[in-house]
Amino acid sequence: MAASAGPEIERLIALLSKLPGLGPRSARRATLALLKRRDQLLGPLADALAAARDRVKTCGVCGALDTTDPCAVCNDQSRDQTLICVVEDVGALWAMERAGAFRGRYHVLGGLLSALDGVGPEALRVRELVQRSTGGSVREVILALPATVDGQTTAHYLAERLIPSGAAVTSLARGVPVGGDLDWLDDGTIAQALRARRPA
Amino acid sequence: MAASAGPEIERLIALLSKLPGLGPRSARRATLALLKRRDQLLGPLADALAAARDRVKTCGVCGALDTTDPCAVCNDQSRDQTLICVVEDVGALWAMERAGAFRGRYHVLGGLLSALDGVGPEALRVRELVQRSTGGSVREVILALPATVDGQTTAHYLAERLIPSGAAVTSLARGVPVGGDLDWLDDGTIAQALRARRPA
Repeated sequence: MAASAGPEIERLIALLSKLPGLGPRSARRATLALLKRRDQLLGPLADALAAARDRVKTCGVCGALDTTDPCAVCNDQSRDQTLICVVEDVGALWAMERAGAFRGRYHVLGGLLSALDGVGPEALRVRELVQRSTGGSVREVILALPATVDGQTTAHYLAERLIPSGAAVTSLARGVPVGGDLDWLDDGTIAQALRARRPA
Repeated sequence: MAASAGPEIERLIALLSKLPGLGPRSARRATLALLKRRDQLLGPLADALAAARDRVKTCGVCGALDTTDPCAVCNDQSRDQTLICVVEDVGALWAMERAGAFRGRYHVLGGLLSALDGVGPEALRVRELVQRSTGGSVREVILALPATVDGQTTAHYLAERLIPSGAAVTSLARGVPVGGDLDWLDDGTIAQALRARRPA
């Protein structure tokens, strides 16, 4: 670390190096860039972080992060109220929104079931999902969970729990990703894409 | 970008993606990490940035960044006052301090002469360097500038300008870096290391 930089700068480097994708070296470079552009970057970033700290909250309906509660998606009356898309976390929700193909609402689980990490259903927002889906107003629950062991375990568990709700439970399709070259794909994906083949 | 994330979060992502080493995707991941750890990371980072904005200044003597002016290095009476190490920027100064081998003072040039980018001597802190070095109190000026064309052009120019000051002007040695495998070194470095060979 820079022995001569003073405690404020040291602290900034230490905090920035905790961000994903930044190590001690790149945190130092980022700190220098911030200090060099104090008015254009450092000041606005300090303000933006303070605003986020003070104003961003968790949506009481779906669990997303926004400055309003309920969040903008839950408040949007033009979105289909009978569709719920279940995602692992807010990052997955943002990815779905970027794709721009879903016009219903979300439910952020807050993680995945994991025997290894000791994460059970009570640690996730499962009860809230069952509650929202029960009562007849929800037509379909789409499980947009990762294609990993934990993701699939969670999907199976949720499908079971959602049977009494009467809503249809579906999952994202598995197959060859757009732009995917067969040569680079793993065997499991190819096998699943073959099993789920469709008329051309 | 995340269309559903609200303007505060969007702004945070946009600002973070301007940091070196972070693109739009990693800025999104960093923002999520910040929002997930609001008390341990987001709040402290907002405070640290505000403190840096309000309290970090440029040292009037050497041009380094610190919360005091003169900076901690310039204030340190145990450091050799007769030695000045000239560096391109604050990043290079921190690198020298990490090496822990230099116990004099610094002079931050604020860039390098560059015909291509139109950077002339008046854009750098050259006059201040000549002033500091003149008067007999400085014994040696060490040019710790990068081994690039611009770095070497700048070094030659500074050596010329410093002749009247009477201080000795030296440069960092060129040679094989510690841990450097000859097989991976460029020809120029090997040639320079051969020319500057020493008794074993």
